[in-house]
Amino acid sequence: MKVGLMGFGKTGKAVASVLLQSRETNLQWVVRKSHTLEHRSVPEFLGISSSEPGFIYSRDEFQAKELINKLPVDVIIDFSAEEGIEYYGNEARDREVSIISAISHYSPEKIDYLSYLAEKTRVVWSPNITVGINFLIIAAKILKKIAPYTDIEIVEEHFKSKPEISGTAKKIASSLDLPEESIKTIRAGGIIGVHEILFGFPFQTVRLKHESITREAFGNGVLFAARHIQDKDVGLYSMEDLMMPYFNIEQNLP
Amino acid sequence: MKVGLMGFGKTGKAVASVLLQSRETNLQWVVRKSHTLEHRSVPEFLGISSSEPGFIYSRDEFQAKELINKLPVDVIIDFSAEEGIEYYGNEARDREVSIISAISHYSPEKIDYLSYLAEKTRVVWSPNITVGINFLIIAAKILKKIAPYTDIEIVEEHFKSKPEISGTAKKIASSLDLPEESIKTIRAGGIIGVHEILFGFPFQTVRLKHESITREAFGNGVLFAARHIQDKDVGLYSMEDLMMPYFNIEQNLP
Amino acid sequence: MKVGLMGFGKTGKAVASVLLQSRETNLQWVVRKSHTLEHRSVPEFLGISSSEPGFIYSRDEFQAKELINKLPVDVIIDFSAEEGIEYYGNEARDREVSIISAISHYSPEKIDYLSYLAEKTRVVWSPNITVGINFLIIAAKILKKIAPYTDIEIVEEHFKSKPEISGTAKKIASSLDLPEESIKTIRAGGIIGVHEILFGFPFQTVRLKHESITREAFGNGVLFAARHIQDKDVGLYSMEDLMMPYFNIEQNLP
Amino acid sequence: MKVGLMGFGKTGKAVASVLLQSRETNLQWVVRKSHTLEHRSVPEFLGISSSEPGFIYSRDEFQAKELINKLPVDVIIDFSAEEGIEYYGNEARDREVSIISAISHYSPEKIDYLSYLAEKTRVVWSPNITVGINFLIIAAKILKKIAPYTDIEIVEEHFKSKPEISGTAKKIASSLDLPEESIKTIRAGGIIGVHEILFGFPFQTVRLKHESITREAFGNGVLFAARHIQDKDVGLYSMEDLMMPYFNIEQNLP
Repeated sequence: MKVGLMGFGKTGKAVASVLLQSRETNLQWVVRKSHTLEHRSVPEFLGISSSEPGFIYSRDEFQAKELINKLPVDVIIDFSAEEGIEYYGNEARDREVSIISAISHYSPEKIDYLSYLAEKTRVVWSPNITVGINFLIIAAKILKKIAPYTDIEIVEEHFKSKPEISGTAKKIASSLDLPEESIKTIRAGGIIGVHEILFGFPFQTVRLKHESITREAFGNGVLFAARHIQDKDVGLYSMEDLMMPYFNIEQNLP
Repeated sequence: MKVGLMGFGKTGKAVASVLLQSRETNLQWVVRKSHTLEHRSVPEFLGISSSEPGFIYSRDEFQAKELINKLPVDVIIDFSAEEGIEYYGNEARDREVSIISAISHYSPEKIDYLSYLAEKTRVVWSPNITVGINFLIIAAKILKKIAPYTDIEIVEEHFKSKPEISGTAKKIASSLDLPEESIKTIRAGGIIGVHEILFGFPFQTVRLKHESITREAFGNGVLFAARHIQDKDVGLYSMEDLMMPYFNIEQNLP
Repeated sequence: MKVGLMGFGKTGKAVASVLLQSRETNLQWVVRKSHTLEHRSVPEFLGISSSEPGFIYSRDEFQAKELINKLPVDVIIDFSAEEGIEYYGNEARDREVSIISAISHYSPEKIDYLSYLAEKTRVVWSPNITVGINFLIIAAKILKKIAPYTDIEIVEEHFKSKPEISGTAKKIASSLDLPEESIKTIRAGGIIGVHEILFGFPFQTVRLKHESITREAFGNGVLFAARHIQDKDVGLYSMEDLMMPYFNIEQNLP
Repeated sequence: MKVGLMGFGKTGKAVASVLLQSRETNLQWVVRKSHTLEHRSVPEFLGISSSEPGFIYSRDEFQAKELINKLPVDVIIDFSAEEGIEYYGNEARDREVSIISAISHYSPEKIDYLSYLAEKTRVVWSPNITVGINFLIIAAKILKKIAPYTDIEIVEEHFKSKPEISGTAKKIASSLDLPEESIKTIRAGGIIGVHEILFGFPFQTVRLKHESITREAFGNGVLFAARHIQDKDVGLYSMEDLMMPYFNIEQNLP
């Protein structure tokens, strides 16, 4: 699978490193807004031995059309910013290149645009694209249906300087129809990221807990999405949509 | 739902207390091997105000046939011992009384006998009948399918005097096709019971954790089983079988 | 050590059960406000085989003077209510009977009265008299001195119906000069009681965590206090005062 | 405080980064066995803006005498290997340069050599030089003295490829006079490092838990050691020796 990556900030670099080390994907290019690192080789920059082309270009240097002509891809992975999609959207639609976007937030207009793209190609959008968090959200929804009488609390821990309630915790709360007050926010030292969903039964407790180790976790989420989008029809998908078939047990479990 | 209870040890008492306090069940009788507490009222003995009949009888005093003639039940709940089923099995089969058994271990002959009973009535057998543990087992199976490359470890903590590896931990291990060495056993002080299934991803960790507070948790599991067996066909079921429909998401989640 | 117990609510009963099972203490009597259970034997009521006298009296039946004349004690243990001390205070002072009080809150007048009693006898007052919590508080104070640059957060988990922030969590916060906002309060199901003090360092985390299993933990705290007050001078002590000598390492550790 | 660093592997780099960012230390040089990165500037290599000299030299290029003549230091910090001390030991002894060594293991001969160096200069040796772990070890020793009747278990979690029981866990076990079987070893995914010391009381549990986030934690431990060795007499010290004064509460706590 030939892939291109939009964005090369801290998370973009971590995702690039996972893509380079995966046999499933072949990194064709990275496009970023800034001119810094222009024309550097990603494998060389990250110190990973790889024969994948993976050079860094700025948006100004090429239009998406030119770039994809030169270096065609099957999937575009977007860790840039909200407006990143303007660069490559129409081109991806026309060529039926799949899109995997991990942008935290899109305006209503951008969401409409995603739907427009999804008429002709496959689009995955997930603000938290880790396998673990998306699994926990689905599992928690199911447990709430099994035991609607439980009290559910969400605890999230992050580094001291993280300013607001974690977007992932808010997503968990809204998925479970819980008010934002169910989220207890802990800020201390250099904690990377912990999310716990606690179900209090009268005589037992169930805790579903996710701990991030490094940003490379997003890379594994991208691989999951890339692998599972391939046999899908065109349309707009969330990570939950891609993961749900695993929960249909009779078909999927031995 | 009229229910009878086999066994009145520590767990039997805890289950009786949950049954008495539930509006879904009406406790008709308790049968135990010992003559201790014979003819005592369960509500009075447990200090629970209830108008349910719930007297204690010994096996010697009545045969199951007589007892159920006098005090008919829809469900027999078994927290006695392996041979308890000999007392009431044929009678339950003939009258199509449902059976919910939480016996830890049955011999192959007894398992055959369960299947024989299940030809004519509904039988649930689950050595750990809590909602939490059975949910965790199914969720863990699914996560293993989603992320087969993870390392899975099982940690169980119990009070110092518990002699062996927890049967529940063994059940979790076998459900996940893991060797018994994946179970790390901690014995310390008065810990009631903790089970954790840890999934180690390269860059993230998912922990599914169950903590028992008191034995009454088994009572809530029995209520779940009693509620979900009602509309099933005759046959032999595990707690997992009863819980699985909740995991078929397209049908069950909003 | 001959002991008398004030109060026979849920916690009083749990403490009585620990006292009866300890070889260090011999329970002479229980005094309570209510007439319920009057003249019942505590060992018999709790189902513990013991040759200790331990009968239950109401405050109205005897004055403290009469009772202690009849059944002298070395230590009075108070799990009753704020005004309990009025019953036995002067008598304990005159006879130099030690006092161990676990009352949550005393008015300033009552605290003055404690100091007055402490002029002539040994008085321990600790609203949370468990060994674990008092150890954690001292250890946390020390770690804060070692690493003043860490961020400290307090998490407390209790059963859904517990109305306010836990008094123990407030005590931890004030011991560490932290505002009450450092306390994150979780209320869910039947959780007995969990307190965690989290120290966030830039590149590591230390968590000091206490989990209550049952109220009997208070009984072990009473035994610790009773054992350590014996060789002390008259005066007013907290559990921390009694525990601190263990922290003077050069003298106390091998 | 002018410091020199031996070793520039993964941990050496992390420690260098903390040293460069601390106002307490000024990094004069890094010496390593390999010729790779020779003459590179550490601030530039790590992408940290700093005016500290901090160049990288190989052992072959200069003897310790020449190097320290050129670039004198107050403290040598050793994250190299067992034989590293041969390079700088005598020179440090003669000039009374303090030594902080984090080498995991020294032969008995090397330990004798450390004692010889410690006759004339201050030497700290600690195989796990984090503040958190050393605090936990002392706190655990104290709790064991307070509650000798508790059951103690040690749990350590690390990444899948870590081959043996963690040296830190072994150190904890030996400090508490526990057999190695008290250590439960979990290996899964990319877990950086977790150590938990669990005290099981009859009716409560205390857990002392340390989680490593990144190797930079060792840098903060080095800063603690460097700060606390300054006013000490010549001699051989462990991290515990330097930390113990904080536990002498009457003198040190308000």
